Amino acid sequence: MEWASLIGYAAACLTTLSFLPQAIKVIATRNTQGISGLMYIMFVCGLVMWLIYGVMIEDTAVSMANFMTLVFAMPILIIKFRRG
Amino acid sequence: MEWASLIGYAAACLTTLSFLPQAIKVIATRNTQGISGLMYIMFVCGLVMWLIYGVMIEDTAVSMANFMTLVFAMPILIIKFRRG
Repeated sequence: MEWASLIGYAAACLTTLSFLPQAIKVIATRNTQGISGLMYIMFVCGLVMWLIYGVMIEDTAVSMANFMTLVFAMPILIIKFRRG
Repeated sequence: MEWASLIGYAAACLTTLSFLPQAIKVIATRNTQGISGLMYIMFVCGLVMWLIYGVMIEDTAVSMANFMTLVFAMPILIIKFRRG
C-alpha cells in the first residue's frame, strides 16, 4: 500500500474512533455539561449527508467511516438533549 | 454541479463548522466538564494526518476542510488540558 493511503486510513480510523471515548464518557456519567448541543446537531446532520454521499458515489470507506461515527455521535446528541 | 458533489460539499461544511459552536462555548465559558480529553487527543492527531494526506494527494478540499477543523478543535484541546 502507498504511504498516502496508509496515512489516509490511519486518519480515518483516528477521527472516527475519537468519538468512542466521548460516547462512553457521556453514557457512563450522563454529564453533558460543556458539550455544545449545536455542535452535535450540525455534526450528526453532516454525518448523515456524508453517508448519503458515500452511498451515492459507491465509496464503501466513506460510507462505513461515517456510519461508525454516527453510531458513536447519536447517543451523545440524544443524552445531551434529554439531560440539557 | 452534480447532486452527489453538492451533498458532499454540504456534508464537509457541516462537519467542519460543527466544531465552531463547541470552540466558542469552551473559549467563552472555560467549562470543559463532560468533554472527553482522549477524544480531542485522538481527533486532533487524526486531523493532522488528514491534513498530511490531503497535501500528499494534492486535494485542496481535504486539506482545507481538515485545516479549518483543526483551527476549531485545537483551542478545545488546549483549554481541556489547562482546566482539566
